[in-house]
Amino acid sequence: MNTQNRYERGLAKLREIDGEAGDRVLESLDGIAPDFARYLIEFPFGDIYSRPGLDLKSREISVVAALTALGHVAPQLKVHIQGALNVGVTRTEVVETIMQMAVYAGFPAALNGLAVAKEVFAQGDGE
Amino acid sequence: MNTQNRYERGLAKLREIDGEAGDRVLESLDGIAPDFARYLIEFPFGDIYSRPGLDLKSREISVVAALTALGHVAPQLKVHIQGALNVGVTRTEVVETIMQMAVYAGFPAALNGLAVAKEVFAQGDGE
Amino acid sequence: MNTQNRYERGLAKLREIDGEAGDRVLESLDGIAPDFARYLIEFPFGDIYSRPGLDLKSREISVVAALTALGHVAPQLKVHIQGALNVGVTRTEVVETIMQMAVYAGFPAALNGLAVAKEVFAQGDGE
Amino acid sequence: MNTQNRYERGLAKLREIDGEAGDRVLESLDGIAPDFARYLIEFPFGDIYSRPGLDLKSREISVVAALTALGHVAPQLKVHIQGALNVGVTRTEVVETIMQMAVYAGFPAALNGLAVAKEVFAQGDGE
Amino acid sequence: MNTQNRYERGLAKLREIDGEAGDRVLESLDGIAPDFARYLIEFPFGDIYSRPGLDLKSREISVVAALTALGHVAPQLKVHIQGALNVGVTRTEVVETIMQMAVYAGFPAALNGLAVAKEVFAQGDGE
Amino acid sequence: MNTQNRYERGLAKLREIDGEAGDRVLESLDGIAPDFARYLIEFPFGDIYSRPGLDLKSREISVVAALTALGHVAPQLKVHIQGALNVGVTRTEVVETIMQMAVYAGFPAALNGLAVAKEVFAQGDGE
Repeated sequence: MNTQNRYERGLAKLREIDGEAGDRVLESLDGIAPDFARYLIEFPFGDIYSRPGLDLKSREISVVAALTALGHVAPQLKVHIQGALNVGVTRTEVVETIMQMAVYAGFPAALNGLAVAKEVFAQGDGE
Repeated sequence: MNTQNRYERGLAKLREIDGEAGDRVLESLDGIAPDFARYLIEFPFGDIYSRPGLDLKSREISVVAALTALGHVAPQLKVHIQGALNVGVTRTEVVETIMQMAVYAGFPAALNGLAVAKEVFAQGDGE
Repeated sequence: MNTQNRYERGLAKLREIDGEAGDRVLESLDGIAPDFARYLIEFPFGDIYSRPGLDLKSREISVVAALTALGHVAPQLKVHIQGALNVGVTRTEVVETIMQMAVYAGFPAALNGLAVAKEVFAQGDGE
Repeated sequence: MNTQNRYERGLAKLREIDGEAGDRVLESLDGIAPDFARYLIEFPFGDIYSRPGLDLKSREISVVAALTALGHVAPQLKVHIQGALNVGVTRTEVVETIMQMAVYAGFPAALNGLAVAKEVFAQGDGE
Repeated sequence: MNTQNRYERGLAKLREIDGEAGDRVLESLDGIAPDFARYLIEFPFGDIYSRPGLDLKSREISVVAALTALGHVAPQLKVHIQGALNVGVTRTEVVETIMQMAVYAGFPAALNGLAVAKEVFAQGDGE
Repeated sequence: MNTQNRYERGLAKLREIDGEAGDRVLESLDGIAPDFARYLIEFPFGDIYSRPGLDLKSREISVVAALTALGHVAPQLKVHIQGALNVGVTRTEVVETIMQMAVYAGFPAALNGLAVAKEVFAQGDGE
């Protein structure tokens, strides 16, 4: 497997999961760290998300959980709540995943995660 | 729904997920904070884990992800890796969930999570 | 003790501590996670804040300390600085609690906590 | 106020709060970072803990809360649970403070904090 | 060495590193915690940054790294990216330091750090 | 550039920085996540550490800083303190980097980092 394949596979996976939001993340790196855009495509999406052994819905549930628990990464949580919906996670499953985090990272982390989900759902309703 | 039902439902759910390890957590609170053992049964397990809307396998995947990402809760990660296996998550799915965290919380968090998984799997093999 | 009592006790305690800000938190959950509003009333306020053994002023000091140290929960820190004032913690005590966190969580966390306190105090002065 | 006073005031305050455990922390810095022992005496204890405006009991409650919530500083939590007891915080108040953190930092952080408290209390009983 | 020297040395060092942004941080503490402005000058800048043994460029690289990894201290990261540039760290070195954090604290922390760097660089270009 | 080159470059870089400790990290992944050992070689070491634009000493200083500040990754901090020494960072520079973290992540994080450094230095003296 050569690097080119990794990049192409990663870009396709990024677009499958994150859609236009993924492209905006890549564009945000223009002029500051273009190589980091390439790494973002290659390692998280080309290597990790492309692995068998855990379905894409479960991967996105795990990411929504972790980003909610970490608490300081709201922009990425927003992208991945939409990403979860894009790959078939239901709104109810997103909300349940975030509520579950109240137990493991506290009520404030869960409340802030729910606020991000509310924003993402409202954007979806407005389209 | 009265409080007694909540407690009983929570205790059953705790035992379904965590098995004997759950009982040991409760016992560890004897003589220091017995009410906290009751809260642990009632809120996380009686309220949250007992909800519909997200299957138990996905709940445990979200918890393994979050505890790996938080990084400072190894004892609970150990209990919940076993809990994930108890409710039908495969070893491969546990490993994939933890590896996914390298992207979101860094390689050290993932490495330490994998070390805990290795320990849990070895205990399972030894039984 | 039945669940209804827990809810009523929690709602009264939430209003005693957080006042209108508490109601706004509950309203923010409308249409996204109404059950979470109920849990928020029942567990933190109906169970924990209602316990004897630690006076309400000390509970709020502990919460201001922890939210300052965690650093990524500014909305909740704002609510709880006001909550601390509501239950009799002085402005000086709030500021001292936050300054104390410079030792345990670093100067940036304390600086950001003081900025939130400044905002809360200014709102109080403007009423 | 000159630096000497700051050091002497800090050392007295450190010993008032932490007792022998404080001396052991200072000794642990021998041969690696002796200046850091001086800073530890001067800034946290000579400057911050010596301030009026918040009583020593409340300061220790805030520290037990923050260290429990941060989760990755068990050695310091141990020292400060003992320190809290040394300045008049009751065992019940320590336990309540840690339990309160389940709401703000999650159940695992509170469980690990209670385990440290149990250890400190047992050492106290054994003396 | 008396306290006055510590304050004067710290203020000079703060201005060397942070320039006007440092003065704005001090001013932000007016009316809320003026003593904290003094501590900020004395301990971080008068004591720590003034030490021999590690050059100022390396100190600022370590701070940009840590603030990126912690993730919840964007205002301070902004000040210290500018501070790093002020003491001779190149833009490339800032970007490389932040990218390095993807490995140790995850891609979201690095992405958010790069967004802050982009903002600081753009302000520099606009002057 | 194909993947094989990335792997070989990464393995060489890992050994340059971490020496035998790097090999032990890779071996620890045998039987649990061998692909993760490959990713660890390829992305952190083959991609990031191999970049120009920031010298290896500064990269290791940034890593020691970040791991000290994060606080919950002691095993990796140990490896990277040794790694820093391996690439020419002095013991004094390691200690100064960790002490600097007292300002940004609190005294407990710095104290625990110094304890790890003391252990690494003692092992070095014993060889």
